[in-house]
Amino acid sequence: MTLLQSWVESANSADTDFPLNNLPYGVFETDSLEPRCGVAIGDMILDMAAMEEEGLIDLAEEPVFDVPYWNDVMELGPDGWAALRDRLTGLLSADAPDQAQVAPHLVPMAEARMHMPLVVTEFTDFYAGKHHATNIGTMFRGAENALPPNWLHIPIGYNGRASTVVVSGTPIVRPNGQTKAPDAGMPSFGPSKRLDIELEMGAIVGTSSEMGQPVTVAQADEMIFGYVLLNDWSARDIQPWEYQPLGPFQAKAFATSISPWIVTRAALEPFRTSTPERERELLPYLREPGPMLYDIELEVTMAPEGKDPSTIARTNYNQMYYSAAQQLAHHASSGCAMNAGDLLGSGTISGPEKDQRGSLIELSWGGKEPITLDSGETRTFIEDGDTMTLKGAARGDGYRIGFGSCTSTIKPAVKFP
Amino acid sequence: MTLLQSWVESANSADTDFPLNNLPYGVFETDSLEPRCGVAIGDMILDMAAMEEEGLIDLAEEPVFDVPYWNDVMELGPDGWAALRDRLTGLLSADAPDQAQVAPHLVPMAEARMHMPLVVTEFTDFYAGKHHATNIGTMFRGAENALPPNWLHIPIGYNGRASTVVVSGTPIVRPNGQTKAPDAGMPSFGPSKRLDIELEMGAIVGTSSEMGQPVTVAQADEMIFGYVLLNDWSARDIQPWEYQPLGPFQAKAFATSISPWIVTRAALEPFRTSTPERERELLPYLREPGPMLYDIELEVTMAPEGKDPSTIARTNYNQMYYSAAQQLAHHASSGCAMNAGDLLGSGTISGPEKDQRGSLIELSWGGKEPITLDSGETRTFIEDGDTMTLKGAARGDGYRIGFGSCTSTIKPAVKFP
Repeated sequence: MTLLQSWVESANSADTDFPLNNLPYGVFETDSLEPRCGVAIGDMILDMAAMEEEGLIDLAEEPVFDVPYWNDVMELGPDGWAALRDRLTGLLSADAPDQAQVAPHLVPMAEARMHMPLVVTEFTDFYAGKHHATNIGTMFRGAENALPPNWLHIPIGYNGRASTVVVSGTPIVRPNGQTKAPDAGMPSFGPSKRLDIELEMGAIVGTSSEMGQPVTVAQADEMIFGYVLLNDWSARDIQPWEYQPLGPFQAKAFATSISPWIVTRAALEPFRTSTPERERELLPYLREPGPMLYDIELEVTMAPEGKDPSTIARTNYNQMYYSAAQQLAHHASSGCAMNAGDLLGSGTISGPEKDQRGSLIELSWGGKEPITLDSGETRTFIEDGDTMTLKGAARGDGYRIGFGSCTSTIKPAVKFP
Repeated sequence: MTLLQSWVESANSADTDFPLNNLPYGVFETDSLEPRCGVAIGDMILDMAAMEEEGLIDLAEEPVFDVPYWNDVMELGPDGWAALRDRLTGLLSADAPDQAQVAPHLVPMAEARMHMPLVVTEFTDFYAGKHHATNIGTMFRGAENALPPNWLHIPIGYNGRASTVVVSGTPIVRPNGQTKAPDAGMPSFGPSKRLDIELEMGAIVGTSSEMGQPVTVAQADEMIFGYVLLNDWSARDIQPWEYQPLGPFQAKAFATSISPWIVTRAALEPFRTSTPERERELLPYLREPGPMLYDIELEVTMAPEGKDPSTIARTNYNQMYYSAAQQLAHHASSGCAMNAGDLLGSGTISGPEKDQRGSLIELSWGGKEPITLDSGETRTFIEDGDTMTLKGAARGDGYRIGFGSCTSTIKPAVKFP
């Protein structure tokens, strides 16, 4: 596929994240507009509430854009999603007849403030990056026991906390928590000293499944509405003390950030790729009928307060051992009901090389090997005032499907009551 | 406190779960009434939607009983909860002047079908029973490592799945899942063979906390709207294979049942009791300023298909090492935002004696010591067609604050797609 031409000029650049090929979904407000659904096109946002009010978009009997989240569109199901994408492509393509009616509903992105694009019903985080799992396992349990015995058979995951999933730009307050040094007699409580990111992709479930009813991997793929960048903030000193035997809890519960634009599965279709060859044969319920992963280039930057960002890692979503469709099929395998608005984190995405690692605990090898930023400063973990940014894009022939960015600045911990 | 007299005669018996002292909150429907909020009194239910429509209940500017869940009442906060309880007590007490107006809005409980009393926003399950944790730890890790090192310092918990929390009476489908026998080379997939209950109390968070803002134990106690019985269904063969390193996932995600009536904190006030003496001093953020646990007698019955129920365990909520207030304070300690409608499972409640154990894995000691039911049948875990029931009540002077029951029958596993 090549770059599709739009009458919105800024969408026709090879450098934009948001060509006509993309059309991602977000929620925005401006000084004069209340929060509402919008579609990114070049450096503009199409106001979907206004488009629906004017009758230019007419998806269902009841309005779906009178609310500031995309969950109502999800409820329309895959046919509705396809109809919307067709309509938008028609309205915004270079030869569209309705330009004069549509143009007044374009808002400059520079004037918009972004909100959460969906109501997250529940959040599940997986652990499906083999390089990451091996790195972390080596640090926590030694090289011989790096990969847990179940890892090659199950897309390991845990339920996260939906109440603290926030949109890019939201400051993150350093968490307090219990930690215990191996040689300390008692735990202590205070601000985390090992605050970290996890570079992930988030898959958004768009159609629901019934309690008691599993889904196949093929059905799971069809249930996915779209993808976002996801930063699974982690307190590396809280986690080792609390996580046995029931898994991570407060080390992760304080915040998860996502990028503001949901990139649809349809936009990513040309970039499908297969998960790597299996090292152990999977059980039938987890086998993929086709390529279910995507070739999406990812990078992480870190900027101390007042300094320019330094790129600290580059990797690709194609490094995952399990796809989101496999994760979703596993999630529903027990009969767990899945809902439109459920968010599935991929797990940290690290490549095989040292500069392809998607977390600071890997990049600084547990804090033992500080990384040096372009400013000359060094870091093992995140300091107050640092800004962490994730970026991602799938690259086509003369265009790219961009995810925008997922960026947050760290604020000091609150003093405890 | 003694039994308060009501003009609803069935509420004046020492044997009712629902005297005027109780006034628990549920959601019911009948053949002629759509699902709506109701208050139990004796063997009747007061129709709150009708009461509000008639102007007999008037809590806020906007109606709160035009929806079939109690979340809107939760949003009113502790002052609103107290006002509602005062009003209900006034309307239903023996000397109430408005009996003739109220009586038409009483519906016989026998005609009602119960629904979920709330929309569960998120579900967190804890592990705060010391006898249970010791029993399970002994079976899984040996007597020397029974209690994890963090257990006496942290109310250990994990995020559960809200989408499968269902009301008493909902059949439970036996889950499928991955299991692996220790001597097997590969895992296999199929119906769980070690399906179990966990006898717990559920605390319902009624007021929200802000992201980034911890709460004290005293504040946490004030945030709790009420309590229900909770059965944390568990697949004991799926759990050991999947739970390392990120905790239980599909072994728990398929179902959690709760009793239909939310018993308010106010109704339980006379039954407050303290957590046991600390074996290790707690960090200040977890210390209780007063008694935060409750004296609630609990029992579990098991009934094979077509047979009478046999009581298999009796215990008490006062056995917990951590209170719900401590769990909630810990949950928010990292800055995790808590919301009205969040459900916190206490963890399995077992007493020190063998017949006080709140799960079959404990009662049958990992399946090695089958229990014998009154019918003469034996059980290690749950078989298809079995009905499991939890009951609970706080016992006062000539009255009791009952929780009703939390009962479910097991259906066979679905055939996998």
